Amino acid sequence: MTEAPVCIGIDVGGTKVLAGVVDVAGHVVRTARRSMPGRRVETVAVEDALVAAVEDVAAGTPIAAVGLAAAGFVDAAGERVMFAPHLPWHGEPVRDLLAARLGVPVALDNDANCAALAEWTYGAARGAASALVVTLGTGIGGALVLDGRVLHGTNGMAGEFGHMKVVPDGQPCPCGGAGCWEQYSSGNALVRYARERVGREPTLLESACGGDPALLTGPMVTAAAEEGDLVARQAFHSVGDWLGVGLANLVAAFDPELVVVGGGVSAAGDRLLEPARAALARSLVGGADRVVPPVVAARLGPAAGLVGAAVLARSLTD
Amino acid sequence: MTEAPVCIGIDVGGTKVLAGVVDVAGHVVRTARRSMPGRRVETVAVEDALVAAVEDVAAGTPIAAVGLAAAGFVDAAGERVMFAPHLPWHGEPVRDLLAARLGVPVALDNDANCAALAEWTYGAARGAASALVVTLGTGIGGALVLDGRVLHGTNGMAGEFGHMKVVPDGQPCPCGGAGCWEQYSSGNALVRYARERVGREPTLLESACGGDPALLTGPMVTAAAEEGDLVARQAFHSVGDWLGVGLANLVAAFDPELVVVGGGVSAAGDRLLEPARAALARSLVGGADRVVPPVVAARLGPAAGLVGAAVLARSLTD
Repeated sequence: MTEAPVCIGIDVGGTKVLAGVVDVAGHVVRTARRSMPGRRVETVAVEDALVAAVEDVAAGTPIAAVGLAAAGFVDAAGERVMFAPHLPWHGEPVRDLLAARLGVPVALDNDANCAALAEWTYGAARGAASALVVTLGTGIGGALVLDGRVLHGTNGMAGEFGHMKVVPDGQPCPCGGAGCWEQYSSGNALVRYARERVGREPTLLESACGGDPALLTGPMVTAAAEEGDLVARQAFHSVGDWLGVGLANLVAAFDPELVVVGGGVSAAGDRLLEPARAALARSLVGGADRVVPPVVAARLGPAAGLVGAAVLARSLTD
Repeated sequence: MTEAPVCIGIDVGGTKVLAGVVDVAGHVVRTARRSMPGRRVETVAVEDALVAAVEDVAAGTPIAAVGLAAAGFVDAAGERVMFAPHLPWHGEPVRDLLAARLGVPVALDNDANCAALAEWTYGAARGAASALVVTLGTGIGGALVLDGRVLHGTNGMAGEFGHMKVVPDGQPCPCGGAGCWEQYSSGNALVRYARERVGREPTLLESACGGDPALLTGPMVTAAAEEGDLVARQAFHSVGDWLGVGLANLVAAFDPELVVVGGGVSAAGDRLLEPARAALARSLVGGADRVVPPVVAARLGPAAGLVGAAVLARSLTD
């Protein structure tokens, strides 16, 4: 008896490669992991890691197609990784290199685009005519999904929501700009808010970080908020409020059917989303006389990128 | 000999109805005008004015189809005018009412959407894969055109760029919000900037408005800038700079192939567009390492709405 060929998604980030067999219902059947050799290596070392992870997870089953979600800028044609902060690729034709190595069709997209596609196909945005998917991690990523297709833009650079300016001459951003949205609403913003208050206000965070604000992490703020710590809760309120302010700008421009919020910070659920909904309703033009779109949590968690990559892979087999 | 049926576009605003026969090359062959009865009349009075303008301009030629560009919110289906600040419609099924009155197919859309469609079909955005069209008049309107189709959004409310917030707790806006982009970049912003300086700095605007800043108008600022007046030129620089700052946010989100700037203020040309281009390049994430889209002036002038409405009409006859 021959096994049916499988579709495999890969999520390649700065520290690891995660490959997964994803079935037609979007379930991750099994995964394999490789650590990333880093950004100061020959690109072939990264490709080796990808191939090894794929071969691991396939475990001898024939492969129908592979999709790759990359944490970096992918060109509009989905052929090359133009730049990735934690990977050695600079314009390499990763799609074709990998297809040649694996001998199967390969699809390539940015990880935030893949995550958005996964949420549209199987998750919180399932079947929506238009969905704005915003990912709060270290910064803000995201994508607009229109009729089931991610808006890539002319250079493949659409969805750079995190660097929309919300405060003139505001917080400096590593992008070189200032006042970028992700300086106010992201995992980094959450931790910065909390750090600025440790030692100045009574908070559980003081002992959590051993008195050294530099050691404070997002999970510490999450844990303290769950225990009722006021500073930690205010940090989430601030990040959520700014989330809603920025969403109002995007909703004014796109008028999406719904807004999906994913990424690590979204694990806080309504602690983040309630202030975001309030700020969206308050900030959106015509808010009282129009439909304000629902703001819901993403459903697929950290596997979203991998699952979306597998959706792309499956589209090659149709 | 029978004349070929014509397509007619109508632009209905707060003060007038302008109807035009538009040929397949986008030329306005002839126009007819009616004054608007106002917003405190029965809606039938507006419909009467539309029908009269259409019959005038058709002048006995058979009509293939009519398109209507309305200065107001149009539902996503293109059937109803939901709300218009200067017209009596509140959810009336204008498309079907007009089709019944005229006995021909009618298409309906928002005027900024029609203008964007016209620029894509015949003007500055001709054939672009994606174009961001921004209209600077009293406020800021606009639309995103993707593959020749205007992005309408779930409620027909996409493209409300003017009410994106660029300054937290900034200038109050009649929309009820504060810090909206159009408070910093629009005809109103131009005049406000100039008014605040009359009587405080030497400027030709002082005599132009007879010493009363309240009497200052946009055309006066334009004329003074052309004569080299420093305050008037600074007013355009400020509006242009803010234009570029807001465009950077939209380009980060959409990554369009090009940006087209229309509306009355855009008649200032490079006096407005040069500072906008500089601010866009400065504010856009990755500006040095990416393609910054060209920012060009719209080509169709005040007829853009009417021409776009005729494009919609023609699409009904295919």
